[in-house]
Amino acid sequence: MSDIEIARAAKLRPIEDIARQLAIPADLLFPYGRFVAKVDTGFLAREDRADGNLVLVTAINPTPAGEGKTTTTVGLGDALNLIGEPTVMCLREPSLGPCFGLKGGAAGGGYAQVVPMEQINLHFTGDFHAITSAHNLLAAMIDNHVYWGNEKDIDTRRITWRRVIDMNDRSLRWIVGGLGGAANGFPREDGFDITVASEVMAAFCLARNLADLEARLGRIIVAYDRDRQAITAKDLQAEGAMAVLLKDALMPNLVQTLEGNPAFVHGGPFANIAHGCNSVVATQAALKLSRFVVTEAGFGADLGAEKFFDIKCRKSGLAPKACVIVATIRALKSHGGVAKEALNTENLAALEAGMANLRRHIENVRRFGVPPIVAINHFAADTEAEIAFVQRYCQEQLDVEAVLCRHWALGGAGAVDLARAVKRLVDVGEAKFELLYPDEMPLEEKIRTIARSIYGASDVAFDGKAAKRLHELTSEGFGHLPICMAKTQYSFAADPSLRGAPKDHVVPVRDIRLAAGAEFVVAICGDVMTMPGLPRHPAAERIRINADGLIDGLF
Amino acid sequence: MSDIEIARAAKLRPIEDIARQLAIPADLLFPYGRFVAKVDTGFLAREDRADGNLVLVTAINPTPAGEGKTTTTVGLGDALNLIGEPTVMCLREPSLGPCFGLKGGAAGGGYAQVVPMEQINLHFTGDFHAITSAHNLLAAMIDNHVYWGNEKDIDTRRITWRRVIDMNDRSLRWIVGGLGGAANGFPREDGFDITVASEVMAAFCLARNLADLEARLGRIIVAYDRDRQAITAKDLQAEGAMAVLLKDALMPNLVQTLEGNPAFVHGGPFANIAHGCNSVVATQAALKLSRFVVTEAGFGADLGAEKFFDIKCRKSGLAPKACVIVATIRALKSHGGVAKEALNTENLAALEAGMANLRRHIENVRRFGVPPIVAINHFAADTEAEIAFVQRYCQEQLDVEAVLCRHWALGGAGAVDLARAVKRLVDVGEAKFELLYPDEMPLEEKIRTIARSIYGASDVAFDGKAAKRLHELTSEGFGHLPICMAKTQYSFAADPSLRGAPKDHVVPVRDIRLAAGAEFVVAICGDVMTMPGLPRHPAAERIRINADGLIDGLF
Repeated sequence: MSDIEIARAAKLRPIEDIARQLAIPADLLFPYGRFVAKVDTGFLAREDRADGNLVLVTAINPTPAGEGKTTTTVGLGDALNLIGEPTVMCLREPSLGPCFGLKGGAAGGGYAQVVPMEQINLHFTGDFHAITSAHNLLAAMIDNHVYWGNEKDIDTRRITWRRVIDMNDRSLRWIVGGLGGAANGFPREDGFDITVASEVMAAFCLARNLADLEARLGRIIVAYDRDRQAITAKDLQAEGAMAVLLKDALMPNLVQTLEGNPAFVHGGPFANIAHGCNSVVATQAALKLSRFVVTEAGFGADLGAEKFFDIKCRKSGLAPKACVIVATIRALKSHGGVAKEALNTENLAALEAGMANLRRHIENVRRFGVPPIVAINHFAADTEAEIAFVQRYCQEQLDVEAVLCRHWALGGAGAVDLARAVKRLVDVGEAKFELLYPDEMPLEEKIRTIARSIYGASDVAFDGKAAKRLHELTSEGFGHLPICMAKTQYSFAADPSLRGAPKDHVVPVRDIRLAAGAEFVVAICGDVMTMPGLPRHPAAERIRINADGLIDGLF
Repeated sequence: MSDIEIARAAKLRPIEDIARQLAIPADLLFPYGRFVAKVDTGFLAREDRADGNLVLVTAINPTPAGEGKTTTTVGLGDALNLIGEPTVMCLREPSLGPCFGLKGGAAGGGYAQVVPMEQINLHFTGDFHAITSAHNLLAAMIDNHVYWGNEKDIDTRRITWRRVIDMNDRSLRWIVGGLGGAANGFPREDGFDITVASEVMAAFCLARNLADLEARLGRIIVAYDRDRQAITAKDLQAEGAMAVLLKDALMPNLVQTLEGNPAFVHGGPFANIAHGCNSVVATQAALKLSRFVVTEAGFGADLGAEKFFDIKCRKSGLAPKACVIVATIRALKSHGGVAKEALNTENLAALEAGMANLRRHIENVRRFGVPPIVAINHFAADTEAEIAFVQRYCQEQLDVEAVLCRHWALGGAGAVDLARAVKRLVDVGEAKFELLYPDEMPLEEKIRTIARSIYGASDVAFDGKAAKRLHELTSEGFGHLPICMAKTQYSFAADPSLRGAPKDHVVPVRDIRLAAGAEFVVAICGDVMTMPGLPRHPAAERIRINADGLIDGLF
């Protein structure tokens, strides 16, 4: 059966039951339909509850072969529940726009999915629409300020706040607005990013509560004046109305897995120019509500896990107890140099070569004081010899357990071994989470530390513009912020073709962007696409409601 | 107490109770929070139920003095429920964007409101976001088609489909998009309207069901090719995905009045370039669910009621049993020539002069075979002599009952006299609804008929371009569509300064637009603003969440 057929065949529990299982008071539950609800989690901050155990799911560098990070997050969560450990999963919300480009949802797959799949992948509870509205309100207020006299002397050439839309629409990437005469304002260059690239999205996901979110929104820098002084959202008195637009959205969305276990699906920032994790609010609430929390981070561990640790955990105080690194036999062979067409053929030599990628991710995770474990996400073509090789190699060479998982085919039952292993690892209690670099380290040095320690680079090459900007940011008082690396996800290096574990490469930093509201400095190491386009024949051409009232073509 | 204080002090009933009162099956109710729900009304079409009595609330031409059409709709509905006539109210959804411009919601006022006010005025159930998404998906698919080879030979100078956003943002009125090089498409002129001006909104509100909506979306004309042949959404295979985006939105939103009576708040098209009424789906469902349905139409009766009758009722088969025309003593004096500052002073002569406006609206409503009744919406400064004058004048000169209403101050109890009068009028059974003009009448003649019969004009002056376009539309097979007049709401004439009942004026028709999906032809008789701007100090500057967690500044 396809993912969508499995999801449709599922018998869902009323969301009130899921909430009751978590002992969420009924009056703090706000249903959106019968199987989705927002939870007012404010009560948890006022109670003196112990936190559960946070487990991060990350992966080797992604390949065309597929890894299955979200399915493993769901499978592990279901399995922990199966073995009697109450567990909540925390996932990102899918973006609406890309659904109409390439077919495919983002709610897991096989028998490891969160449901209701269609609602989650379409408008869901409207969080992204709220973020779009808040972002564009700020944009409108900037141009409106200029229109009505420009009291703050905004340099219209230096307005850095673009607009957003949750749609793949390349023709909006670069526009000139304000045309058509004096009544429409002053013409200027502008453009649209996709909503997940909005700094509002990143701030939303890092905020501890609504007051913190409002403060972060106020600190967003939207433009510079003619004296090159920063203009913030607060200078335009926009942050209050933006927070009002985001008030309901900031409550985490409760859904369930196919096996009826609770999951928060909340927030979804880009994993390149932002940190790529679900909201802090959801993760913190989940920790108060259950013994285990399984969550994921975007891309491979070099980007996703590093940002999870150094950005998300830094400010929120989250401290993971274990880290699952997802790998597949196919992907490891791909890192070992095998072409996509040959991935279904047993190839132990390539597998061994590909282990270099996994090895470095394991070493990296250990650098943060978090004990790793490897999940081998099973594919049909995997041979017994290949699986045995990876398990033995991990045990003998890397001192890490590698557990075979079949959650895609079997649901939680297919990940019970992984669940038991994760629980053992957590129970041993060897986690001692630490950040890779302290706040006080200079920005350039932070970037160099990430490149050397995590990417295996020999050094970083800063473009003149980037180096200058880092100095400016330091002198403007932003030197204490963590770094958000925007690098290709396909390699440890900035060159996506370098599979495996490239060494002694140089990471080029071409540009620097400040996210003063989200509270990080983005180091751009390559092309970054913040507004996708639609393909020649977008999925939208085939999406429709069929004769049975069901949606065809979306997945 | 202010509107917002009254709304906050209200004790709301769970929305499940409201639904139960209407005998809506529990499994067809989809809650959005505890006091709002979407209703899957499909079951009603499959049952052989009699329709309730439809009552339209309209008004004299609006003046700066205020009339109170929405409050009267709510007050009358509450009063009908009070006198034992089960009644559902049908209202339009407020637009989000304008909330951040000028302070003020659109959910009634005083003790005649629908609640929860804040949710209704902010994102509500996301319907407008869904409409924005569907509209902009179509826009993205047009540019994407051109980008990937332009198989249909779209003339990029003749793309008529703009983009929309639910925000007051003048700088997006006119843009050039597709800039920045070959990867971003072909540069072309473009622009954004506010979401309520989208043809998707109008089609949504006129569709009888999802299949009808999909068919209408498919017929939307988005561009012309190099041979001047129309390109539709269906030509681009966009209508299926658009319908998927609107699937949940098309279910009516159930809320309650302050007195706990049911109301559908669903859809909200512009009242100038569109027809300005809530959805057909909501009105038809309400008629199946209760004995009376009270609904409203935008602007004064010359625009709102005429479009309600000739556009909304024409295709849907709705047939109103009575029509309430709302007037205030202040507004009538304003039509009699009194300046805003002097409206609180008794002035029987001005009142008599102003009655000309009310008289013509009464005559107009009768032209549709619908018996009228006048609601005098009470203001504190009204004198007894003024009220008595209007009532006597209506009875003696116009043969219509004029009932004093105090629902703003007293809720339903303040409109019981009106409710009794409306019920008597309906019970007499003299309604015999008929359209002003038949489908077969030529487009030019339809416009002339509206101008002469309803506006009291001597003739219509078509600009050369408009006349040419009408001929084109007729030859292209659109001659059977009804007309949607886009004229100032402040006067029967196209000149907004002509109060009262101007006669023998000429209505200039400057431009013609086709809404092939909504199924009407728009005749533009003046400046039409489809994207508002923010004021110098927008309400957004003062909107915030206060220390009690409540929203300040929005209302």
